[in-house]
Amino acid sequence: MNFKPFYPPVRTLMGPGPSDVHPRVLSAMARPTIGHLDPAFVSMMDEVKMMLQQAMLTSNPLTMPVSAPGSAGMETCFANLIEPGDKVVVCQNGVFGGRMKENVERMGGVPILISDDWGRAVDPDKVEAALRAHPGVKALAFVHAETSTGACSDVNTLTRLARHYDCLSIVDAVTSLGGIELRVDDWQIDAVYSGSQKCLSCPPGLSPVSFSERAVAAIKSRRSRIPSWFLDLTLVMGYWGSGAKRTYHHTAPVNTLYGLHEALVMLHEEGLEQAWRRHRHYHRALRAGLEAMGLRFVVPETERLPQLNAIHIPEGIDDVTVRGLLLQDYQLEIGAGLGVMAGKVWRIGLMGQACNRRNVLLCLAALEDVLSRVQARIERGGAIPAALVALGQAG
Amino acid sequence: MNFKPFYPPVRTLMGPGPSDVHPRVLSAMARPTIGHLDPAFVSMMDEVKMMLQQAMLTSNPLTMPVSAPGSAGMETCFANLIEPGDKVVVCQNGVFGGRMKENVERMGGVPILISDDWGRAVDPDKVEAALRAHPGVKALAFVHAETSTGACSDVNTLTRLARHYDCLSIVDAVTSLGGIELRVDDWQIDAVYSGSQKCLSCPPGLSPVSFSERAVAAIKSRRSRIPSWFLDLTLVMGYWGSGAKRTYHHTAPVNTLYGLHEALVMLHEEGLEQAWRRHRHYHRALRAGLEAMGLRFVVPETERLPQLNAIHIPEGIDDVTVRGLLLQDYQLEIGAGLGVMAGKVWRIGLMGQACNRRNVLLCLAALEDVLSRVQARIERGGAIPAALVALGQAG
Repeated sequence: MNFKPFYPPVRTLMGPGPSDVHPRVLSAMARPTIGHLDPAFVSMMDEVKMMLQQAMLTSNPLTMPVSAPGSAGMETCFANLIEPGDKVVVCQNGVFGGRMKENVERMGGVPILISDDWGRAVDPDKVEAALRAHPGVKALAFVHAETSTGACSDVNTLTRLARHYDCLSIVDAVTSLGGIELRVDDWQIDAVYSGSQKCLSCPPGLSPVSFSERAVAAIKSRRSRIPSWFLDLTLVMGYWGSGAKRTYHHTAPVNTLYGLHEALVMLHEEGLEQAWRRHRHYHRALRAGLEAMGLRFVVPETERLPQLNAIHIPEGIDDVTVRGLLLQDYQLEIGAGLGVMAGKVWRIGLMGQACNRRNVLLCLAALEDVLSRVQARIERGGAIPAALVALGQAG
Repeated sequence: MNFKPFYPPVRTLMGPGPSDVHPRVLSAMARPTIGHLDPAFVSMMDEVKMMLQQAMLTSNPLTMPVSAPGSAGMETCFANLIEPGDKVVVCQNGVFGGRMKENVERMGGVPILISDDWGRAVDPDKVEAALRAHPGVKALAFVHAETSTGACSDVNTLTRLARHYDCLSIVDAVTSLGGIELRVDDWQIDAVYSGSQKCLSCPPGLSPVSFSERAVAAIKSRRSRIPSWFLDLTLVMGYWGSGAKRTYHHTAPVNTLYGLHEALVMLHEEGLEQAWRRHRHYHRALRAGLEAMGLRFVVPETERLPQLNAIHIPEGIDDVTVRGLLLQDYQLEIGAGLGVMAGKVWRIGLMGQACNRRNVLLCLAALEDVLSRVQARIERGGAIPAALVALGQAG
C-alpha cells in the first residue's frame, strides 16, 4: 500500500460545525511548534485566557480551553461538579441535552429529565416545577444553543431559577459563544463549556470552559475523587493557572492553541457585539431567501438561533441526494438532521467566518439549483446515483 | 488591552516532547478544514488507521488516535478496561508509572505497586513475584519508554508474564512509537497508547491507541458502565469503525489529524526499521559527545533509550541558568528533570524529526559553550540574571 499526502477538497462549511476557518487561523496553525512550558508559549496562554474571558464576558479566573473537543469540555463540567448520588435537573430539547443526561449518569449522578419538543426552547415553567418538586438538586443543566435543532433557550431566566433553588447552573454554550449574546457574569452561570469549531471558527480540538467562584467552591468541597485524571481541574489549573511557574500536567495541543489565539484576536478586532450583529444580519438575509423558496423553519421565530438554521426537507425530496449534489457540484456542506430529525431536516450553519454575504448567496443559489434538478429527476422517475449517496453521508 | 497575532520563536526542540515538527507536517496542519463526516475526511481517517497499524506492527482493528493528548490515551485504556475492584499490577520506575497508578485509583481499581529505581528498567522478577502473590489480577501496566528518566523496559518479557498469569497488559508507548522497536502483535500487547508529539513528530493533541481482541472482549463483558462518555470506546468506534457510514460521536480535531496523516506518510516513506536505526545512530553520536564533555548518563547502557537521554547535571551547575542560556542564545530547548529528578538531570530528546546530525552537533556545541560560560561565572562569583531564570522555566 502506497500512502501519499492528503490534500483536502476546499469546501464551504455551512453545517453544524466545523465552520469555515479563516486563512489567518489556518496559517497560525502552521507556525513552528514550541514547548508547552516555553516562556513564550506561557505568555500566549495568558492572552488566550484573557481573550476568552472577554469573549465570555466573565472575570472568572478559572477560564481556559480544555485540550480536547467540546464533548470533553462537557465532561469536564460534569466530572468535576457532579458526584455519585447528586441530583441534576437536565433539560432535553435536542441531542445535546441527552448527552448531558448521559454525563450525569456516568458520574453516578441522578438525572431528573425535563423534556421539551425538539425545535423548541427549554420551558422555564417546567424547570421551576421540577426544582420545586425535587429539593436538594445539585445542578441545573441545559443547552443555550441546541445545535441539533437551532433552538435558543433563555439562559438568564434559567440561571435565575437555579440560584433561587440554590443549585449550580451548567450551560452548554458550544454553538453560542461568539455568535449570540452570552454573558457569563451578568447571567451568573456557574459552569459553561464551548467549542473552538463553531462561531469562533477554529479547527476543532479545544473546548473553552469557565467556572464561577461558587463552582470552584463546589469542586474544592467534593466528598469523592474526580473519576478522571485528565479532566481533573484541580490538576489542570497547575498548568493553566496564574504566575510565571506552570506545572506540567498534560502536553497542551500547541498548534491548535495558536489557531484559537488567532481566532480570538480576530474576534477582538471585530468586536464581540459586532460579531453578534453580523450573525443576526446574515441570518435575516438567509431566512428571507429560504422562505422565498418556500422552505419552512423548524424553530418558531422568537426561539431561533441565527447561526444554526434548521429547515424542513420538502415533501418527497431525498435528504442524501441533495446534500450529495451540494457537496459534489458546489463543494458546499450543509448539515443533516440528528437523532429523531435525521432525514427530515437540514441544518444550515452561519457560524463565525462562515457567516458572510458570499456564503448566504452561494447557499441559496446552490440549494435552489439542486432542488430544482432533483425535482425534475423525480418527475422523470430517475434513480439516484450511488456516488451521490456516498457524498451525502457528510454533514 | 490590545491583542496581536502570536509569532512563536523558532526553537530546536530537544526536550521530552513536543519534538521538532517537519515543515511538511506544519503545512498539512494549515490545509483547509473540512467536515469531520466529509467522505474525503473519512477516507483520510482510514489511511491514518492503516498507517498506525503499520507503525505499531499490529493488525488490531481497534487502532486509532484518541482526539486528545497522550494522557487521555492513557485514560482511555484504564477507563475502558479497569472496573471498580479490579486488581492491577502497576510498575513504577518514573513519573508515568505513577500516573498509571492514579488512573487505576480513579477508576476504582486496586493498584498493586511494583517500584524500581528511577532510571532503571522494570524488573520482571518483581513483576512475576507480584503476579504470583496476587491471584486474579486483571491487568499488568507498565511504561515501555519512561520519558521522565530515559529507561527502556523489556515489553516482550513483561507481556509474556501477563499472559502466563492470565491478565491483560497495558503498555505506555508514548515515547517509544516510531523511535524504537515496538511490536504490538508479536509481543501480544493488549492495550497500548502513544502520543503524536514524540517520535512521530506531530504537534501534540492526539494519542494513538490499539487494543487486542482480548482487550475488546474485556470491554464488551464489563459489569459496570465506563465512567466517561468521551472516552467510551464502544461509542468512539461508531465513528472510527469500518464501513462507509460513520456515526457522529464527537467532533474530531480535523487539522491535527491532517498533521498526523502527513507525519505517518513520512514515517512510511522512511521505513519503520530505518527510523529505529536512525534513532540508535544519532543517540550514539550524542552519547560520544556528551561523554567526551564528562557528562554522565542516568540510565545504565543496556537499559537506555536512544530518543531520551537523561544526564546528571554536573556538581555546582544551576539547572535553570543553563537551560535559560540554551534557550536565549541558541533557541534550543532541552528538558528539565521531572519529579524526584527535578534540578538534578537534563533530558535531551532525539525524537522523530529532531533526531538528526545537525541537532546532535548543535546540542553538543551549545551545551559546551554554555557550561563553560556558567563555570567561568561561578568562578567569578557572579549572580544569575532574572531573565535567564524566567527562560529556564521551559522544558
